[in-house]
Amino acid sequence: MGTTQLETVPEPKYWHLKTVLSQALDSEFAVGEILPNERDLAARFGVARATLRQALEQLELEGRLQRRRGVGTTVAPPRMGVAVGSAQGTWPGAVGDAWQPADCGPAVPSADVARMLETLPEEQVHMVRRTRVSHGQPVAAELLYVPTSSVPELTGIDAPSGAARARAVLRELAGLGLEGQDRAVELGSARADDAKALDRLPGAPVLVVTTRFFAEGRTAAVSVATYRADTCRLTFGDSGGVEIHHGPERHAS
Amino acid sequence: MGTTQLETVPEPKYWHLKTVLSQALDSEFAVGEILPNERDLAARFGVARATLRQALEQLELEGRLQRRRGVGTTVAPPRMGVAVGSAQGTWPGAVGDAWQPADCGPAVPSADVARMLETLPEEQVHMVRRTRVSHGQPVAAELLYVPTSSVPELTGIDAPSGAARARAVLRELAGLGLEGQDRAVELGSARADDAKALDRLPGAPVLVVTTRFFAEGRTAAVSVATYRADTCRLTFGDSGGVEIHHGPERHAS
Repeated sequence: MGTTQLETVPEPKYWHLKTVLSQALDSEFAVGEILPNERDLAARFGVARATLRQALEQLELEGRLQRRRGVGTTVAPPRMGVAVGSAQGTWPGAVGDAWQPADCGPAVPSADVARMLETLPEEQVHMVRRTRVSHGQPVAAELLYVPTSSVPELTGIDAPSGAARARAVLRELAGLGLEGQDRAVELGSARADDAKALDRLPGAPVLVVTTRFFAEGRTAAVSVATYRADTCRLTFGDSGGVEIHHGPERHAS
Repeated sequence: MGTTQLETVPEPKYWHLKTVLSQALDSEFAVGEILPNERDLAARFGVARATLRQALEQLELEGRLQRRRGVGTTVAPPRMGVAVGSAQGTWPGAVGDAWQPADCGPAVPSADVARMLETLPEEQVHMVRRTRVSHGQPVAAELLYVPTSSVPELTGIDAPSGAARARAVLRELAGLGLEGQDRAVELGSARADDAKALDRLPGAPVLVVTTRFFAEGRTAAVSVATYRADTCRLTFGDSGGVEIHHGPERHAS
């Protein structure tokens, strides 16, 4: 965080190494370049392997490095600013929506989602699966839960599943008057299916955005969206989800 | 995520264990209770220690477990909903602000913050340090950067540092007409000083919220707030940062 006259807490060894490594990344390595192996790096900086590994883990958490099986550790590009919703809000699937419908089928939501939707314990809802691609990369996977109180059984639709059915559910949902929405962001770990969609290993850290959509005085739909924490910076703007155009805040670098 | 007809990806062994453990936490353990040691747990569930450890790490990432030095692994309380700003926005330090000013002094911000503030590379700004307490626990630490173009040198103030000076800077800042703000959320790791303020170990995962405040056609201040990722769910409401009152979405449980 630059020089400051308020720093008073001593920093552990790997933390100092992290700062030194971070500067080396800036000056000596290009985005996408593969780092030397751990043994060579530890020797170069005169530290134990364990210390080096801790520093590398921190840099991965901060989005500076990417570790991929079979490739090694590479220098990550700056995180992408990904706009999350607008202040006033629109229904999922509205014009300009960045999400692509992938699938739809009946499902019993988790207890927490069921509580928000006020559905019964074993009650099925429409579960729409969508994905979001930014700059050619998959950045997020979403499960959107729509109870039959919002969109009844679609008897007139031929498609029992798939993107066509997803679009049909979204079209019906958009017929309700949206009264508002709220949103929560928390840390989570990627489920196996999300991890596959996001090109990550199961259990990778993700940012989970839970959005409740309100209509007719109740929660009409709940979206649980899982964003890659390594490549994404979620942005919230004043005016319809404007992206921050400046570079990422390199926290603690 | 309950039963669903869309699940097609096989889940790794530790993932299944995580689900089983999660159910055991719900049915057999109370919040704050200390878990049996790893050897006993591995024996009970008939898995290798490495598999158990992976599952425990996932549950920690999802906020179900807390691991503390000298205490062991305990069952975590549900994450707290912590409201992050309002849609329309107010200056830091406005009435009802949840943050407590702790300190203030001159500092040279990081290159990224300097770029947002359009200050020169070595230019000093006011750096206000604030903390946020919720339900008796420290949940976040903030560094607020205010350039002298927003608040000039405070020659009339006796206090060269401390909370009194912080309040003086915030008071001056509030004299500017706030035109808007935007916000970004990303994953980070706790710096040593933040970690101390948040009662965590350095490098612990945190949610970093960067807010830009706009006035007079430029960025008048930048806040970098570090929230505990283990205990906090950041909430964004339609109407002035309303909290979500329902329980957390237990992602992937």
